[in-house]
Amino acid sequence: MASDWGKHINISIFGESHGKAIGVNINGFPAGIKVDADMINHEMARRSPGGELSTKRSEADMPEILSGVLDGVTTGAPICAVIKNNNTRSSDYSGFKDTPRPGHADYTGILRYRGFSDIRGGGHFSGRLTAPIVFAGALCKAFLKEKSIAIGAHLFSVGDISDTPFDPVNLSTDTLSAVYKKALPVISDEAGEKMKGLILNTAKDCDSVGGIIECAVIGIPGGMGSPMFYGVENILSSILFGIPAVKGVEFGDGFTLARLYGSNANDAYRYCSGKIVTETNHNGGILGGITTGMPIIVRTAIKPTPSISKAQQTLNIKTKEISRLVIHGRHDPCIAVRAVPVIEAAVAIGITELILDA
Amino acid sequence: MASDWGKHINISIFGESHGKAIGVNINGFPAGIKVDADMINHEMARRSPGGELSTKRSEADMPEILSGVLDGVTTGAPICAVIKNNNTRSSDYSGFKDTPRPGHADYTGILRYRGFSDIRGGGHFSGRLTAPIVFAGALCKAFLKEKSIAIGAHLFSVGDISDTPFDPVNLSTDTLSAVYKKALPVISDEAGEKMKGLILNTAKDCDSVGGIIECAVIGIPGGMGSPMFYGVENILSSILFGIPAVKGVEFGDGFTLARLYGSNANDAYRYCSGKIVTETNHNGGILGGITTGMPIIVRTAIKPTPSISKAQQTLNIKTKEISRLVIHGRHDPCIAVRAVPVIEAAVAIGITELILDA
Amino acid sequence: MASDWGKHINISIFGESHGKAIGVNINGFPAGIKVDADMINHEMARRSPGGELSTKRSEADMPEILSGVLDGVTTGAPICAVIKNNNTRSSDYSGFKDTPRPGHADYTGILRYRGFSDIRGGGHFSGRLTAPIVFAGALCKAFLKEKSIAIGAHLFSVGDISDTPFDPVNLSTDTLSAVYKKALPVISDEAGEKMKGLILNTAKDCDSVGGIIECAVIGIPGGMGSPMFYGVENILSSILFGIPAVKGVEFGDGFTLARLYGSNANDAYRYCSGKIVTETNHNGGILGGITTGMPIIVRTAIKPTPSISKAQQTLNIKTKEISRLVIHGRHDPCIAVRAVPVIEAAVAIGITELILDA
Amino acid sequence: MASDWGKHINISIFGESHGKAIGVNINGFPAGIKVDADMINHEMARRSPGGELSTKRSEADMPEILSGVLDGVTTGAPICAVIKNNNTRSSDYSGFKDTPRPGHADYTGILRYRGFSDIRGGGHFSGRLTAPIVFAGALCKAFLKEKSIAIGAHLFSVGDISDTPFDPVNLSTDTLSAVYKKALPVISDEAGEKMKGLILNTAKDCDSVGGIIECAVIGIPGGMGSPMFYGVENILSSILFGIPAVKGVEFGDGFTLARLYGSNANDAYRYCSGKIVTETNHNGGILGGITTGMPIIVRTAIKPTPSISKAQQTLNIKTKEISRLVIHGRHDPCIAVRAVPVIEAAVAIGITELILDA
Repeated sequence: MASDWGKHINISIFGESHGKAIGVNINGFPAGIKVDADMINHEMARRSPGGELSTKRSEADMPEILSGVLDGVTTGAPICAVIKNNNTRSSDYSGFKDTPRPGHADYTGILRYRGFSDIRGGGHFSGRLTAPIVFAGALCKAFLKEKSIAIGAHLFSVGDISDTPFDPVNLSTDTLSAVYKKALPVISDEAGEKMKGLILNTAKDCDSVGGIIECAVIGIPGGMGSPMFYGVENILSSILFGIPAVKGVEFGDGFTLARLYGSNANDAYRYCSGKIVTETNHNGGILGGITTGMPIIVRTAIKPTPSISKAQQTLNIKTKEISRLVIHGRHDPCIAVRAVPVIEAAVAIGITELILDA
Repeated sequence: MASDWGKHINISIFGESHGKAIGVNINGFPAGIKVDADMINHEMARRSPGGELSTKRSEADMPEILSGVLDGVTTGAPICAVIKNNNTRSSDYSGFKDTPRPGHADYTGILRYRGFSDIRGGGHFSGRLTAPIVFAGALCKAFLKEKSIAIGAHLFSVGDISDTPFDPVNLSTDTLSAVYKKALPVISDEAGEKMKGLILNTAKDCDSVGGIIECAVIGIPGGMGSPMFYGVENILSSILFGIPAVKGVEFGDGFTLARLYGSNANDAYRYCSGKIVTETNHNGGILGGITTGMPIIVRTAIKPTPSISKAQQTLNIKTKEISRLVIHGRHDPCIAVRAVPVIEAAVAIGITELILDA
Repeated sequence: MASDWGKHINISIFGESHGKAIGVNINGFPAGIKVDADMINHEMARRSPGGELSTKRSEADMPEILSGVLDGVTTGAPICAVIKNNNTRSSDYSGFKDTPRPGHADYTGILRYRGFSDIRGGGHFSGRLTAPIVFAGALCKAFLKEKSIAIGAHLFSVGDISDTPFDPVNLSTDTLSAVYKKALPVISDEAGEKMKGLILNTAKDCDSVGGIIECAVIGIPGGMGSPMFYGVENILSSILFGIPAVKGVEFGDGFTLARLYGSNANDAYRYCSGKIVTETNHNGGILGGITTGMPIIVRTAIKPTPSISKAQQTLNIKTKEISRLVIHGRHDPCIAVRAVPVIEAAVAIGITELILDA
Repeated sequence: MASDWGKHINISIFGESHGKAIGVNINGFPAGIKVDADMINHEMARRSPGGELSTKRSEADMPEILSGVLDGVTTGAPICAVIKNNNTRSSDYSGFKDTPRPGHADYTGILRYRGFSDIRGGGHFSGRLTAPIVFAGALCKAFLKEKSIAIGAHLFSVGDISDTPFDPVNLSTDTLSAVYKKALPVISDEAGEKMKGLILNTAKDCDSVGGIIECAVIGIPGGMGSPMFYGVENILSSILFGIPAVKGVEFGDGFTLARLYGSNANDAYRYCSGKIVTETNHNGGILGGITTGMPIIVRTAIKPTPSISKAQQTLNIKTKEISRLVIHGRHDPCIAVRAVPVIEAAVAIGITELILDA
């Protein structure tokens, strides 16, 4: 396992879905940062299950900080936070060791750990492991806020329904705040209503649906990131692909750039209010792996939740017989919804790494 | 700079476009691997400029191996290879320090290195730095070949023209070999002809065009990769985004997965010729960051070459005046063409890292 | 802070002496290793305070394993273990923020963390943080035992009193076992009695005394370790110097080698019972950073406990006035005694890293 | 092989004694540092063979810088420097593959690299590989000089002859400069003469002798270094043990501390000329892994050169028969002499890492 990430700030995540607890140990976090419990709890709540669009498993999910914080301020020592697992129903998952769930890591985990992996609820591969990422991200957001760097994300699309994209040139903290306050993090409420409808219908069909999350970083100074392999894109993608269900990451216009001509893909420089800026931002605020000072724009593709109640075919890997699988238990019809704060958190951790690298 | 990559195998790349030499030092490469000079030279030639679709700069680009190889076999010691720079015309690039080229790293390099970066020909940010990646990749391909793992890529698209995609389930080494032999690495010759036409027209327009490269790994055993942050996707994306012009990376169906339902995105297991396989391969051979044993499918978006002969607007960052820029010199109308062997090389290095991690 | 260590196995230590808890998160530990609670508890007890030679602070110090172990066997997922802090008397340490204790990290911690470090009981610098190292070491010992590798240490010296040294050529597991069972880990009981007398006298004088610990690894195969900077000596020293109070590390004859001639420092090869061995072992089982297959011999110098009840001079760093300091509270007259199992644990972790690197 | 070192500054060393070339690639070196060719050449010359006390192999050993330096100033890009091998006599070393030289890494290299290692002249294990370390160290010294940090070393002892030790409290740059200028780097010329006599006698006896090198860092600010495993001692020892023949590393009073009482090992604080200092410096300028601001004192034990002309016993590892070995060729009777600039260089690299970590 390599469940730790980062060179300057190192987050080391532990736990299994149905074990005693999950959590994170954060090494290298700067001293002197105020830890705002309300802010952390709010971030945790954004990711928490509950509500009509997500799993019925209710999790308090409030982390207990064991170290590294004294009188509400970080000390520079490692910060360990633990989230107890209370509400687990392991029996839901018994038997998957022989008949691995399609789209999950049951089978690959068995291969990798020679049959010793904890398969209950996905074990260490569970989406639940994103809760400690959100905790670490909340601390990083607090650190970045002191440097006037803000991070926010929205549901860029769910299935075939698209939200209004971020304006990559003039994106403001106001837009980020407005999205942050909504139950469904979208810019266009009309798109949000359609997404909701699609998700509820999908749930009724015992199925799930994918989505794309667009995340932005504003206020980041130019000159952050180190080529060739420690640039913004390398750093962010290497943490983002650690989030279960992420299958694609693109920056700026991303895959669309592949269809463009250089004459409309290059971002012309100009001078504005005492700053060098670009007129467009097709490159998502990054050139040569280094920030330009324009907003960073990153989109991640989230696959449909692999757990569906619809009957699926699988294999009994012991008997080698085809088997019919119906997954009971609690699962999200569109995991992309709850992934929004997770993506923000991962980006916040990545950007903190970048800032500490500078 | 963090121009080194990898934990088990570490490649450390050096050089500037118009400096004395470029090269790579490879640490941790296994002992006892035969170094086939012809194979290496062929790989280098695939990336080399020349031909009607690429820059007119002629580069011999043959690396001199300084260490780590004895009697044609790797010794386990670091392998350093150097490629001399002979054919540089620095005067083409004079003056970019004040008027940075849009879409290039000129400006961000100045910010990052406080004005000390070598800006001639893009300096250390130049696409020329991919030559040492190809060299390192050639060694890794030789290592992987001994383990019956093959890697190949094709031009998935150029602008709006698409090639036939790889079959993610039944992809064979025959297909990879067939593509490998072609001047333009595509599956469909018809698509190839259209791409050629588009590229030549783009060049006539003094413009450039982007593309997508699809790369596959076949023969890789299941169980490779370590969650959460050392999985196949994290490893491959973190090296792929080190290649200049890459702006997006996706695995399996990637961004398309965001539009699918779980019932058609999950890959059902079945048993076939003594092996557990999946019927479909929407997940690109990776679940939970770990290989399933199916082909790995990864696509990267390559932006249009930022160097274009068309006039562009830029800023004189000293006088703060808008300036008109025409880039003379040699550049590719579609850098994606020459990026194909580079992507293969980067994937080969990444997969070697994975194999050594197991 | 960089309280994590290791590339293949990564231990990430957290906690402060007077915080809520201390612990460790272990990443990359192999799957399928049996976790023997009795063995772990015994190792923890060896380091625990108590007995006439150590501090009066009584600590249960039994770690709670939160993750990575299922049905008593490691799963390959990160193993987090937490030890609660129950018996702390913070008032003993109030005021050290202005008058830092000589020989401790109070002052340097203030400098490093700009006044935000937790100074109570030494905070994250406390010797108490070695308890999680012992836990991690116990797991590693179990892993190494499966490979017939044994690790043991003894008090090589306390002040001017020396124990019989290990025989670096013919050291047996019997010797290691015999030492392991003793309350004071020495080979010569006569030396042990003298050490005991010296330590008790030192305690009566309100003073402390240093010592040297000799540790051996037997059964390790030849060919482990990677030059130039990932050799046995680099790896072991980099973890050993993480143990508070360690000020010197030497291998084989170590500093004595500096007085020898090549003709009596080289270890001649010979063949014995089907194995290539050396007649002597001045090099401590390591040549060129790589194991020879002979016992690894490493000695660490432990400085006298800096906490002493004797009056000392210090500075009030605020008023800049010289101040007289008497440290109350509980402390060991010879921390080297309790450091023996800690050194063994650190060596076990280091050797595990080496084995996983091979 | 892990011939690269460092997290912030990464040096990656390559080459074999009798290969084409040796060299180093340096990643992460700060931009804007003036590269003084004379200073570098002087450092290289200090390590170079020649003179009555060292091997007769004459090496120009002047590195060619291939990248990362423009107009005599570092650019922030990787700095690769290559030193050609001209004067090699491989025939001297033929045959050692079957009869490995005692005290050398011939045998362990064969084990580690399954018979593929280059054994000629020690291959990648050769002391010659310290030349690139000296080059990298020279750059780091230039960087540190800008921060008023100076590094210097002397021969603390050769065999049983001791030089005057550094004054760990009041050590001045004048002392370092005086030693630096001498052919034999000692403080006491009388001791130097005795050492010379011992070394020449040892050479006459076809033997070699060990020594201890004491190195100091002055001008380093307090608060550098990160506990628990990225402290000054961890960092310096992990690079120092990468130098061939180093078998022990100690800080401050080191192993002598093990014989002291706390009351005379603690360093009392006082205020002097506007600075907080310590009255003594038994801890070598380091507490809790962090600098106090006092001089850093580190001593390394160098074993006798294993290559001696005296006849030795070895084993033919193929026939398993005992064999008599006489090593012809060129070797130093006391490698510690030429190791002085190498130790300084390694310490300079380590301190640069520390400064970049802060």
